[in-house]
Amino acid sequence: MAQTASAKEGMWTPDQLPQIADDLRELGLELDPASLTDLTAFPMGAVISLGGCTASFVSPTGLVVTNHHCARGSIQYNSTEEENFLETGFLAGSLEDERAAAPGTRVYVTVNVEDVTERVRGNIEQGMSGEEIFAVVDNAEKAIVAECEAQAGHRCQVSSFYGGLQYKLIDRLEIRDVRLVYGPGDSIGKYGGDIDNWMWPRHTGDFAFYRAYVGPDGLPADYAEENVPFKPEHVLKVSAGGLNDGDFVMAAGYPGSTQRYTRLTEVEQTFNWQYPEFQALLADWIAAIEDAAPAGSDARIKYESRLAGLNNYMKNLGGQIEGARRVDLVGRRAEREAALNTWIAQQSGGTDYAATLAALDALSAESAEVSRENWGYSNANRSQLLSAAKRLYRLSLERQKPNEERESGYQERDMTFFRQGLQALDRRFDPAVEKAEWMLFLKDYMTASDTVRVAAFDEALGLPENWDEEAVSDILDTYYAETELDETEFRLSLMEQEPSFFGESNDPFIELAVALYETDREMEAAAKDRAGRMASLRPDYMQAIIDWQASEGFAAYPDANSTLRVTYGTVLGGSPKDGLVYTPFTTLEGITEKDTGEEPFNSPQRQLDLIEAGDYGQYALDTLGSVPVNFLSDLDSTGGNSGSPTMNGKGELVGLLFDGTIESVNSDWDFDPRTTRTIHVDSRYMLWVMDKVDAADRLIEEMTIVSGE
Amino acid sequence: MAQTASAKEGMWTPDQLPQIADDLRELGLELDPASLTDLTAFPMGAVISLGGCTASFVSPTGLVVTNHHCARGSIQYNSTEEENFLETGFLAGSLEDERAAAPGTRVYVTVNVEDVTERVRGNIEQGMSGEEIFAVVDNAEKAIVAECEAQAGHRCQVSSFYGGLQYKLIDRLEIRDVRLVYGPGDSIGKYGGDIDNWMWPRHTGDFAFYRAYVGPDGLPADYAEENVPFKPEHVLKVSAGGLNDGDFVMAAGYPGSTQRYTRLTEVEQTFNWQYPEFQALLADWIAAIEDAAPAGSDARIKYESRLAGLNNYMKNLGGQIEGARRVDLVGRRAEREAALNTWIAQQSGGTDYAATLAALDALSAESAEVSRENWGYSNANRSQLLSAAKRLYRLSLERQKPNEERESGYQERDMTFFRQGLQALDRRFDPAVEKAEWMLFLKDYMTASDTVRVAAFDEALGLPENWDEEAVSDILDTYYAETELDETEFRLSLMEQEPSFFGESNDPFIELAVALYETDREMEAAAKDRAGRMASLRPDYMQAIIDWQASEGFAAYPDANSTLRVTYGTVLGGSPKDGLVYTPFTTLEGITEKDTGEEPFNSPQRQLDLIEAGDYGQYALDTLGSVPVNFLSDLDSTGGNSGSPTMNGKGELVGLLFDGTIESVNSDWDFDPRTTRTIHVDSRYMLWVMDKVDAADRLIEEMTIVSGE
Repeated sequence: MAQTASAKEGMWTPDQLPQIADDLRELGLELDPASLTDLTAFPMGAVISLGGCTASFVSPTGLVVTNHHCARGSIQYNSTEEENFLETGFLAGSLEDERAAAPGTRVYVTVNVEDVTERVRGNIEQGMSGEEIFAVVDNAEKAIVAECEAQAGHRCQVSSFYGGLQYKLIDRLEIRDVRLVYGPGDSIGKYGGDIDNWMWPRHTGDFAFYRAYVGPDGLPADYAEENVPFKPEHVLKVSAGGLNDGDFVMAAGYPGSTQRYTRLTEVEQTFNWQYPEFQALLADWIAAIEDAAPAGSDARIKYESRLAGLNNYMKNLGGQIEGARRVDLVGRRAEREAALNTWIAQQSGGTDYAATLAALDALSAESAEVSRENWGYSNANRSQLLSAAKRLYRLSLERQKPNEERESGYQERDMTFFRQGLQALDRRFDPAVEKAEWMLFLKDYMTASDTVRVAAFDEALGLPENWDEEAVSDILDTYYAETELDETEFRLSLMEQEPSFFGESNDPFIELAVALYETDREMEAAAKDRAGRMASLRPDYMQAIIDWQASEGFAAYPDANSTLRVTYGTVLGGSPKDGLVYTPFTTLEGITEKDTGEEPFNSPQRQLDLIEAGDYGQYALDTLGSVPVNFLSDLDSTGGNSGSPTMNGKGELVGLLFDGTIESVNSDWDFDPRTTRTIHVDSRYMLWVMDKVDAADRLIEEMTIVSGE
Repeated sequence: MAQTASAKEGMWTPDQLPQIADDLRELGLELDPASLTDLTAFPMGAVISLGGCTASFVSPTGLVVTNHHCARGSIQYNSTEEENFLETGFLAGSLEDERAAAPGTRVYVTVNVEDVTERVRGNIEQGMSGEEIFAVVDNAEKAIVAECEAQAGHRCQVSSFYGGLQYKLIDRLEIRDVRLVYGPGDSIGKYGGDIDNWMWPRHTGDFAFYRAYVGPDGLPADYAEENVPFKPEHVLKVSAGGLNDGDFVMAAGYPGSTQRYTRLTEVEQTFNWQYPEFQALLADWIAAIEDAAPAGSDARIKYESRLAGLNNYMKNLGGQIEGARRVDLVGRRAEREAALNTWIAQQSGGTDYAATLAALDALSAESAEVSRENWGYSNANRSQLLSAAKRLYRLSLERQKPNEERESGYQERDMTFFRQGLQALDRRFDPAVEKAEWMLFLKDYMTASDTVRVAAFDEALGLPENWDEEAVSDILDTYYAETELDETEFRLSLMEQEPSFFGESNDPFIELAVALYETDREMEAAAKDRAGRMASLRPDYMQAIIDWQASEGFAAYPDANSTLRVTYGTVLGGSPKDGLVYTPFTTLEGITEKDTGEEPFNSPQRQLDLIEAGDYGQYALDTLGSVPVNFLSDLDSTGGNSGSPTMNGKGELVGLLFDGTIESVNSDWDFDPRTTRTIHVDSRYMLWVMDKVDAADRLIEEMTIVSGE
């Protein structure tokens, strides 16, 4: 049995858990660790992906619980001016009242995971160029996915682990009829809003319920009235009590991406250049949008979501940069590389390894250089209309090939989301705002010192040699005045057009897209070549890491890649800084204390009255003297883990993972056990709200509630 | 023996301490509580006022320790571009190197406190008008002060306690030759700057040293080379160890003002109108200055201090408003008044009391109404040049009277500070900035809905009927173009001019001052009349409070009034809000953790190196594993307490009080024992810096250092 690297670092693939079984048992897991490796058994069979978020089945009739922020788009989609469910919350009184979720909402049930490394990498030959390696891997992946998706209703993907050392086919049932069942209003589900985002203390009721529906034949189907609730093989029981400070908890979910094994050169590129550069750009970008779309304007409504995203990213970058400073990320990474080098030097074949690492670092440096050079150009391509024109023109060209040979993203399997993307543009585009954004990016492109100008772009857009605000402004005005791409029907019609149509079009954005096509393909080819070379170098590096860690008695888990992982630890407060302590639980009374009556601290009066009355029902934690609202743990999580069921040692649902503290965001790069804390909504608060505040009795009855004693 | 109102509420006058002797002893006071009542004995004889700050004698040769922020003006005053002591710190190598503090710096040693209530109030007669009562009190106070100040080198004041129920003469030795001895650089003494102001966790080395000098005859004297160090009768020993979580601490100091006994009508006026109104104005005011004095401009340097003050006030107001919301100040005050009313109704003479309270509340409402009406006009008078013109014109008129009959502030005893005020204007005035401020205030005056326009002001200034930016701007341009009041010599020369000079002057600010004189005097007379009526009503209210509290076994302390008070309690962390805990101590390592290398988190490298080396000397707290930097207590303090010696049960100096947490600022109105915490710099950190970082051995040797065991 291997040790874990550090309490409680680790996003483990289910098949790794037997390796750390002793630690799991010692910490409090009562289930057999081996049982967690079977994705079709309890409890993993109950854990599902929403694509970007995690969720779990909590009733035999397909009831799904996830975070409010993962289902909020569907609540918004079903809201009107008259029935604003974001404000009032939504609760379907019966199955018939359950409403279609937002377009594109999916429930993915992982049914099989299979190692396909040999099929993916088997045809890589000595002496191949990067581009050739990329093609070998890419073609193999496409073929494997196509084979898997021959099963009706399945959505498959090939995922790379340990930087391409291992490839796995993830076979998932794709449920396409997903309905909104229940979500509290923002004043509970989004309590604290952007202000409290990434913050502790926290009092957010970040939970909501979907239901998965399938055709009468039990197979995935598009939304239809005759569809019936999906019957999952496994569901989680929901705990109404028992969890306390120090107790074992684990979460299963789909963390998106981490950089725990990046090389020092990559860390430096990110923290010394990319993040600060982006931080500066974000500040200007946000200001440009706010200027062009003043609060209260129609344009602002269209850009609310983008502004929220940019502000969120800004806060995240700030936290990452601050965290890197605090843990001395660069210094620690340098130390680790030195230690690895020392170990490597002692191995037989150490010289080969060292040569690989040198090549890897040279390649990283090369990629960093390209990033810096292309920074201005890639930002200057952020126009939504230009991007749509480029994708549509490329689609027309890809459609000349047989489906299986088309570029990823342009195959038949991609067309549903392709179309939805084109449709959605409508709701988040305003020409004046986009022009302001584009002006900002063009100015940056034309004035930044280390950016390389792209001749084809300059020529096609007719840019002057030096930045000239008025001249550029005039050019862009013509673009927005003359384009028809802002019309949905026109955009959608282009999905069926031949390349010649684009070649003959006078639409300025289409002309620009056509003019840039060759340049963009050259850049893409170069990127693929680097990716191919990386795919041949990185696995050796990761193998060295795995062997080195093993020699010290540690198991190495792969970086997160949006596949199912398990993280475990305990309920645990923490000290984010000298002089300050986070307690592990917050309480109902903390809501009253925090409440100002103004968004985002505007709890429903009914909730405040219940708190004042001390009406805790069966949901209080005695040692706390109240109902716990949110709690902290030392679980290892990141974006994509949102909505993950937090389970106790018996595999009962005791909460939902929904955030990390701001001191934790840097843990994507370097897990600091002292400050990394994950935030969960406590199942007792969820049940208390359902029971006392929102009267969601129908759902409580449908679930199996356990006392947790 | 009486109970204290609530742990550890109370700013006790020294003569009250025997009343609460049991509690003091129980909590850990080892000195005889009675010994604290003698202001000329140990330890109170060592506690001194700097006017606005508190300090204490720590050596037999007049060494004075106070906060860095209390002495920073003197460090700045002695700095030049070549020798910037704010950056480097200042340390006099010998007595000869000690430098004159900033003009106006004083050390006040309280030598006697005497009840003069009978003399002040004795001549108040039934049926007197408010104005008459005001005059009786004012005249008595002036006469008492004049008598007291007949002693050379004394500065006296009559202070009102319990809203005029009691008057005391405070007789203080006024030491005028104060010299700067030692202050660390801002990177220790102001570490954390405005960002950390009112914040915990805190790591500020907020200490500095003055020395009091007197003439060779031992009497206070103006600065002169032959002056010698003052020899205080009592000094505090300085503790190098021993203080721990839960230990008894007390602080003696000069808290400025609190509003613990204000009536509900006054609380509502403040929190529902005045504070929110001022908050809004402050935001505009700060923006106006920042616009008119861009960062980096010469004008900005002149307004840095004002900007810092306004931002500070803004943060404070935010904390007060938030605190009032959190504790439900209005609701609690209403409850207290109801309880008081119930008690009063049960007393003989209850009806009279009730009538007094009704009259008091009516008067409060009347004052509130006047405040709202005059809000715009009083802001519109904030021009520094207009204010100087008004004061100078009034001085010329007051000087026609015998000195003892002149208005307070215009007597001979006031002239030193009067002159310094006129001189200082130079360093904080820029016509363009002041114009921008004045424009803001005038716009507010002319457009706010409930403000009353003052005819004399409108006429003299030539204001249009409605706000007209261009017209008003033109008027103000003329004012600043034509005035000579921006010239120091001219301003100072006006101190000697006759009224006729002002009457004939063509200086626009002087003309305006003369034109407003009668109106202002009418307003002043009305204010004095209200104050006089208040002086006749409030003592009864306070007597009711005292009696009511006594009937419940509590001692009532008077609101703070800048006189010497003692507060006591324990070293104690706290919970500012649900989910968050403040630990009682911060550590040296917290400095390293917080340090970014950029102001205000730019610790000297020498300090960081010593911390990294773990070179704690004898100053570590074992249970903490490091040297404590700052600590929290539940002492009851407010502005003016800055620099107060924090003493242990033996009266040894264990720290300096320098701030309260932001959750505490509302305690001026309502002491909340759960959240009110006072912040101290630990004497061990002070000594460690002096010993290890700044090599201030000369001063350490001069003090008596005790181990605290």
